[in-house]
Amino acid sequence: MSSAKSMVLTEFNAPLEKQEYPLPEPAKGQLLVKIAAAGVCGSDAHMWRGKDPRTPLPVILGHEGVGWVAGIKDDKESVEGQIIREGDLILWHRGISCDRCYYCKIIKEPALCSNRLVYGINRGCKEPPHLRGGYSSHILLDESTSVFRLPPHIDPAVVVGATCSGSTAAHAFDLFSPRIGDTVLVQGPGPLGLFSIAFAAACGAAQIVAIGGTADRLELCRGFGADITLNRNELSAAERREKIMELTDGLGVDYAVEAAGSKEAVKEGISLVRPGGTYLSVGFGEPAGALELEIFEDLVRKNLHLQGVWVSDVRHTYMALQLIRGKMDTFAKMITHRLPLERATEGMELMEKKEAVKVVLTPE
Amino acid sequence: MSSAKSMVLTEFNAPLEKQEYPLPEPAKGQLLVKIAAAGVCGSDAHMWRGKDPRTPLPVILGHEGVGWVAGIKDDKESVEGQIIREGDLILWHRGISCDRCYYCKIIKEPALCSNRLVYGINRGCKEPPHLRGGYSSHILLDESTSVFRLPPHIDPAVVVGATCSGSTAAHAFDLFSPRIGDTVLVQGPGPLGLFSIAFAAACGAAQIVAIGGTADRLELCRGFGADITLNRNELSAAERREKIMELTDGLGVDYAVEAAGSKEAVKEGISLVRPGGTYLSVGFGEPAGALELEIFEDLVRKNLHLQGVWVSDVRHTYMALQLIRGKMDTFAKMITHRLPLERATEGMELMEKKEAVKVVLTPE
Amino acid sequence: MSSAKSMVLTEFNAPLEKQEYPLPEPAKGQLLVKIAAAGVCGSDAHMWRGKDPRTPLPVILGHEGVGWVAGIKDDKESVEGQIIREGDLILWHRGISCDRCYYCKIIKEPALCSNRLVYGINRGCKEPPHLRGGYSSHILLDESTSVFRLPPHIDPAVVVGATCSGSTAAHAFDLFSPRIGDTVLVQGPGPLGLFSIAFAAACGAAQIVAIGGTADRLELCRGFGADITLNRNELSAAERREKIMELTDGLGVDYAVEAAGSKEAVKEGISLVRPGGTYLSVGFGEPAGALELEIFEDLVRKNLHLQGVWVSDVRHTYMALQLIRGKMDTFAKMITHRLPLERATEGMELMEKKEAVKVVLTPE
Amino acid sequence: MSSAKSMVLTEFNAPLEKQEYPLPEPAKGQLLVKIAAAGVCGSDAHMWRGKDPRTPLPVILGHEGVGWVAGIKDDKESVEGQIIREGDLILWHRGISCDRCYYCKIIKEPALCSNRLVYGINRGCKEPPHLRGGYSSHILLDESTSVFRLPPHIDPAVVVGATCSGSTAAHAFDLFSPRIGDTVLVQGPGPLGLFSIAFAAACGAAQIVAIGGTADRLELCRGFGADITLNRNELSAAERREKIMELTDGLGVDYAVEAAGSKEAVKEGISLVRPGGTYLSVGFGEPAGALELEIFEDLVRKNLHLQGVWVSDVRHTYMALQLIRGKMDTFAKMITHRLPLERATEGMELMEKKEAVKVVLTPE
Repeated sequence: MSSAKSMVLTEFNAPLEKQEYPLPEPAKGQLLVKIAAAGVCGSDAHMWRGKDPRTPLPVILGHEGVGWVAGIKDDKESVEGQIIREGDLILWHRGISCDRCYYCKIIKEPALCSNRLVYGINRGCKEPPHLRGGYSSHILLDESTSVFRLPPHIDPAVVVGATCSGSTAAHAFDLFSPRIGDTVLVQGPGPLGLFSIAFAAACGAAQIVAIGGTADRLELCRGFGADITLNRNELSAAERREKIMELTDGLGVDYAVEAAGSKEAVKEGISLVRPGGTYLSVGFGEPAGALELEIFEDLVRKNLHLQGVWVSDVRHTYMALQLIRGKMDTFAKMITHRLPLERATEGMELMEKKEAVKVVLTPE
Repeated sequence: MSSAKSMVLTEFNAPLEKQEYPLPEPAKGQLLVKIAAAGVCGSDAHMWRGKDPRTPLPVILGHEGVGWVAGIKDDKESVEGQIIREGDLILWHRGISCDRCYYCKIIKEPALCSNRLVYGINRGCKEPPHLRGGYSSHILLDESTSVFRLPPHIDPAVVVGATCSGSTAAHAFDLFSPRIGDTVLVQGPGPLGLFSIAFAAACGAAQIVAIGGTADRLELCRGFGADITLNRNELSAAERREKIMELTDGLGVDYAVEAAGSKEAVKEGISLVRPGGTYLSVGFGEPAGALELEIFEDLVRKNLHLQGVWVSDVRHTYMALQLIRGKMDTFAKMITHRLPLERATEGMELMEKKEAVKVVLTPE
Repeated sequence: MSSAKSMVLTEFNAPLEKQEYPLPEPAKGQLLVKIAAAGVCGSDAHMWRGKDPRTPLPVILGHEGVGWVAGIKDDKESVEGQIIREGDLILWHRGISCDRCYYCKIIKEPALCSNRLVYGINRGCKEPPHLRGGYSSHILLDESTSVFRLPPHIDPAVVVGATCSGSTAAHAFDLFSPRIGDTVLVQGPGPLGLFSIAFAAACGAAQIVAIGGTADRLELCRGFGADITLNRNELSAAERREKIMELTDGLGVDYAVEAAGSKEAVKEGISLVRPGGTYLSVGFGEPAGALELEIFEDLVRKNLHLQGVWVSDVRHTYMALQLIRGKMDTFAKMITHRLPLERATEGMELMEKKEAVKVVLTPE
Repeated sequence: MSSAKSMVLTEFNAPLEKQEYPLPEPAKGQLLVKIAAAGVCGSDAHMWRGKDPRTPLPVILGHEGVGWVAGIKDDKESVEGQIIREGDLILWHRGISCDRCYYCKIIKEPALCSNRLVYGINRGCKEPPHLRGGYSSHILLDESTSVFRLPPHIDPAVVVGATCSGSTAAHAFDLFSPRIGDTVLVQGPGPLGLFSIAFAAACGAAQIVAIGGTADRLELCRGFGADITLNRNELSAAERREKIMELTDGLGVDYAVEAAGSKEAVKEGISLVRPGGTYLSVGFGEPAGALELEIFEDLVRKNLHLQGVWVSDVRHTYMALQLIRGKMDTFAKMITHRLPLERATEGMELMEKKEAVKVVLTPE
């Protein structure tokens, strides 16, 4: 192949346009990668709709990717110290932090680095080398990209979520873990919620409760480790509360993760956490207005620990990848749609309408 | 002395009434204590005004106390393992947790124990042995009360705050400490705020900023370790923000403690914390209405760590006592008023009007 | 039944003697319990052999127990807040801490309380009420004993290990947890090792390696979650090292638990931990001589985190109980021998010779 | 100046040789720095004596440095986000980690990065640009060097220790902090020990005990915050133990730091830590033979937390710099000798013989 095929966002709300770009020669440290699987994230649809003001135009969307090394100049090592060679199947972390600033060096939270570059998000395709997003046959990765080498026969579509929703859920659990024996509540049955359920199980939660809106999704939650599922279209808030208090000897859950992106969920979730418990809000990718919190009852008297979680770093992608690799069959069920690259626009629509749990584009 | 003199709350808003009670004979493990100093806390005034629905009537207020052992039946040890003898000067932790429940045994946060008894708060004086509060010449301490032995010549008034405001501030710093080199903001220049400033200094904060409303109080803050003070009656919110951003290379503070009990303070404080920073709300003792938080901007995008802090346990009183003992001269300045027991009502009024930083009653 | 039957240690190395004691009337807060299952612990055999100088004579051994409430005076609550009634199946924590001292109140590590009483260990049976150990038809539990209520149809023998080996392993994992994705090494395939494997799995370890000496035991390790097992009677130390370096890209394991009680295991284990990793030594119950550690290579240059683990507290028993309840079928396989009470001496011999993984006595 | 003057180690044990090198033109991101102060570290003397097998020859020693920016190509930012301009006074972290590997990205402990380069240690001066150590009029810093901007009028010699001994002590306190109110023991009164005392004070230790061998050094320890000093040439081990037990109600210290580099110190220190306490070994820079540890009594029964500490990263240099800046007058007392660059060999001898606490070279 002498050129790359990419699906390009040139105008908000319009179908992505197919374009060809010349295949670049990788410079020192760079990798040219033939994409095997590109995840379609809910936030891609937001960008497509023009809701994210940072979106450069034109841009190749797609920040979740797995592929084969198609071009490499020098020796390169994976984060784990393995040699990377042409033909290797790899997964890369979506963000590149500057490795110089207060967040990178002093705080050690590169997710908060203000110089952070993200493939498929804040790197447009106007200028060469163009190939900076995942909705494409190829991508060019910079030297400072963190890369993981995968076993050759692994299904690329199943692990691709490790780089965004899995990584972000990992960030939450890395900031504060539930303790062995805890009762954990997860709100929202999308990819973030499913990863959160799997992480809670991996952290030794004794009971995992999932709240969602459809029987299908809740069935999926059970497959990921939820012990109890509550359908918010069938049970009233009072009934949900009653169930949870019954499960927790009247105390409330020890730890809860919001992966629903709704303020109502946050209000409900906080009310279901026991005094001294932890509530992590992970599901908001854009402004959503004001949350009303009773300062005394919800926060102070409750000795509540409330944590916002923003994106993630390489460590979190590693955690998510390790999690998936131990449960490939389970995570395969998250991938409800596999589409060819050309149908990327349709993929975003499926995510937007919540008809798909997870869409993965598979070029070729 | 054959009887105890106590100032009793029999009717909300009315002056406390002086009453006499027979001195009880301590049972096994109990201590009869002659009070040397009883702190007047802001929350005492709230109880007096009938704002705390848990207040039993009649009640001897006063949950902060230091005194000499006047009666003891058997051997008794301090928390630190020292033998307690008649005549010893002691300080006691105000709360008694049940040592049996989920919070005491599994979570190890006895401050959240739902069976917690507190001298001077939820123990009325209707029935014998009556003497369960600090506004009194004597108090009877139960076997399970945690007691610290003090050096005989220490000024009782100076250490008495270790048992409530100091202990509660310690709880905040025990839940999450600033890191050495951090910039810390403390909002509110009362006892809780002053203790928070001293704890921040003891934790190695590189810069401590205090916000308050009067020059006198801010001067006091400087004495406790504040490097920069901002008078909110002289500087606008925008000016305060500008100052703080200047001090932090535009990032915001790493760590902030709210000790003001005002929702506006919480809003301002959160806006002054850097991404990834910590905000602890310590200053609310009663319902104060709804706080509006921008769920995305204030919490999630900011990766904010928001913690409510409710009362404290013995460990925290120990931390506060250790803090004070290293800085007796500094803490002496917090005690603006020493009143005889009979003027307890006046003491509450001084606290209520914020004319006093800290009032201590000294029986005799 | 009007009297209790107990197996009593009256002389070291001699068979335990069957004795009868009158059934005591429980005082306020006490529980008289009819024992359903009493675990035989490796340390019981040590006590029997006279290797533990603290052993009072005569004594009813047995610090792991589950049973039915046979006598109760007043209301009593479980640690989780459930009402305890006659006939309930309960499990109790073996130790009673004083709830007063520096370790109980300030450090919050009651396992280190120097006033700690332990059923079946430092409570002799010479004086009434006699029934203070588990090798008996009945035991009398003091008011301050922490009790967990069990579902009525659970197999008592399977959960009994939660109170000692499970609880001690939990202490290790509570002090320092592996991180999700870590490679964990467990040395020793007895109850402590099996619990450690299960905890490592519950903490999200990506790879668990177990080292043991027999194929049977290593098969059991796999059932508990070990991914790789190394037989030290088949592989040399160099071969074991090679295997582990292969699994960890040459770095060594992130986290290791010693549950073997051998100094050689400690030397080997430390050498297999990566720089910056964690090594916990849990398996020593009595003096075992000097360990030679290369101060620079093993500790400082390696930035090693080395932790000794001593006994446990109620929180850890809770963690172990939660762990078992999620995996009853797995833990059932640990119980290789169920013997009637009368064969207690034989039970200790089986543990001593390592012919049994775990012996449980089942009175009647 | 058109050339740099450097003191070069060409042959072990021989005096350093003065050499001239051409001043290089900084490439993109590099900084040419005119050195204002170069610390002489105890480990420099070890390298000079040929005890460190990694030492490349020839090499310009000196891994602690402060200086003025003399050449810069493009914009450059400090770790704290300030613009660096020609003429600015800066301090740099001695190590450059790779920002790619498992330790840098997953573990977030770049001190353990196996690709770590260190100025003045593993970067020889045979090839251009030669200037890679601090015993020189100039040094050339690579793009990935972490740089802190200093106020122009600060005394460079006083802060220079932040980059090695201060940073390493910070690493210890960052791994595990004492708690407010703790009693802390520091063994060894050299720069590492003095920094440890200052960090313990900054962490809110209630009592700091220092052990050393001369009255002068112990006097210095008091100036840094030690409350009690024990002269090991005047007090026997038994007497030291008695003193410490007296200070801690018979328990032992909560937290101890070894900064003496002696195995005997480690043995003594561990024996003085209370059960459940923490012991950090920081003072070993080279192999020192085997330490005999009683596996049961010293480690397991004691529930000891033993931590080796190896070098440091940028975060730790930041912590040390913040610590010094709050106590410039105190830290000035650590600098017992200021020598011109030409007397570098003498500086190493002074450190070796412990005649100096800290020697700083001040070119020109």
